[in-house]
Amino acid sequence: MTYQDLAGFQTVQEARAAIRAGIFSGHTAGLAPGKLQCNIAILPEAYALDFLRFCLRNPKPCPIVGVGETGDPTLPTLGPDIDIRHDVPRYTLYRNGQFSEEVTDISEHWRDDMVTVALGCSFTFERALVAAGLPMRHVDQNVTVPMYRTNLELESGGAFGGKMVVSMRPLSGADIPRAVEICTRYPLAHGAPVHVGNPAAIGIAAMDQPDWGKAVTIHHDEVPVFWACGVTSQNALLSAGIPLVITHAPGHMLISDIEEDAALPIWKP
Amino acid sequence: MTYQDLAGFQTVQEARAAIRAGIFSGHTAGLAPGKLQCNIAILPEAYALDFLRFCLRNPKPCPIVGVGETGDPTLPTLGPDIDIRHDVPRYTLYRNGQFSEEVTDISEHWRDDMVTVALGCSFTFERALVAAGLPMRHVDQNVTVPMYRTNLELESGGAFGGKMVVSMRPLSGADIPRAVEICTRYPLAHGAPVHVGNPAAIGIAAMDQPDWGKAVTIHHDEVPVFWACGVTSQNALLSAGIPLVITHAPGHMLISDIEEDAALPIWKP
Repeated sequence: MTYQDLAGFQTVQEARAAIRAGIFSGHTAGLAPGKLQCNIAILPEAYALDFLRFCLRNPKPCPIVGVGETGDPTLPTLGPDIDIRHDVPRYTLYRNGQFSEEVTDISEHWRDDMVTVALGCSFTFERALVAAGLPMRHVDQNVTVPMYRTNLELESGGAFGGKMVVSMRPLSGADIPRAVEICTRYPLAHGAPVHVGNPAAIGIAAMDQPDWGKAVTIHHDEVPVFWACGVTSQNALLSAGIPLVITHAPGHMLISDIEEDAALPIWKP
Repeated sequence: MTYQDLAGFQTVQEARAAIRAGIFSGHTAGLAPGKLQCNIAILPEAYALDFLRFCLRNPKPCPIVGVGETGDPTLPTLGPDIDIRHDVPRYTLYRNGQFSEEVTDISEHWRDDMVTVALGCSFTFERALVAAGLPMRHVDQNVTVPMYRTNLELESGGAFGGKMVVSMRPLSGADIPRAVEICTRYPLAHGAPVHVGNPAAIGIAAMDQPDWGKAVTIHHDEVPVFWACGVTSQNALLSAGIPLVITHAPGHMLISDIEEDAALPIWKP
């Protein structure tokens, strides 16, 4: 396979080195193709057990692919040299449930009680769908995928709970079974869609008014297909109103050394 | 499908009710066929975060299928009426890393800081292998499956770590690929084997001297096949020497309401 990286990096190490050095701070879609990218949540240890329980009970929106030791910024099971203080291109800080700031390095915010949790990301299955020739409307229209709050109740864990957030990609009737088949192969990246068709059935009132991202065109022969979305975990972290949470900024993921079709999210030398 | 329960129970509820009432305190193999059975570890909250991290980093031997809230003996994601203080036929208590006692109810040992962790179990894939016509030698010989310590290093989490424990089932060359295919479908129950053939390669010196269970006959046309084993987690819990851990007694599992071929370990009404 030719290694075609959107930003011209030759290896995952090169991509991560550029991110760590602050040379690259953009979106990671298309970078280090074939490597598992991760949603990141960094939170105080006092909340980590509850957050893990919440994720474990909601594996479709929140598939855990890695967890750091308390106060340790490395993630050896995701890659031998990862340092989570520098290796995400852009971070968002939330304090007491409110947006605080965006930064490209969190060295000064890291604390001895911090725990990093890495969750699978939709980039993985999107790449597989594109490789199979399926259209990705938001990519064609060059916008962020539309995401919606739903009435799908989550299993709560401590202060974490609420409703599922989904992302939507319109597909033709013939493409839908194929999309489901393909996504089923990626349980670490949200897996099969959670709903097909009628948005009202999952509590979505207006398809043209997504809660995050931008609305996309749905052609007359297409049906909206909904996937569990990683924003669900960010939403739950915000609603819990904990003193400090650091996440990746939308689209600015951690690039791991794990192959995205790996059966287990454990890096082996 | 005819519901054929080895003990004559008609439903999973009936089996669990008999266990809860203390009427049944035997092995659960063959009970409530088709329902996911679980390894159980109950430990103080102070160690729970590290234990979850350890399990998440070692998903083959330690596939998490459920976690309780601290101090709450219910496990609603595994079944609507489970109470872990009564619903396991037989429990083992370990104090400071040493065997303490076996009991059939843990009401008097339950504490407000206790956390229950449920892990998938080999009964699930064994049933699938038998259904496919593959021989299970330990079943034919009516002994507990032989289990061995290996040199396969685990990813540690806090005080939890060590080497993997495996279970062994001999199979003929023609049956091995089929066994791997079938077990791959059950990632919540240890998934595909971790090793086929040469025991010495994974640090097993003597096949006739298992560390747990009983040795079984390996015919001349057969190869030993090794699966990651749930005893790995018990071993890690003991080695950590924590003040109190309660586990299921070997073979005396929690029977959940989850279908054993469910993609997600989340009970839905």
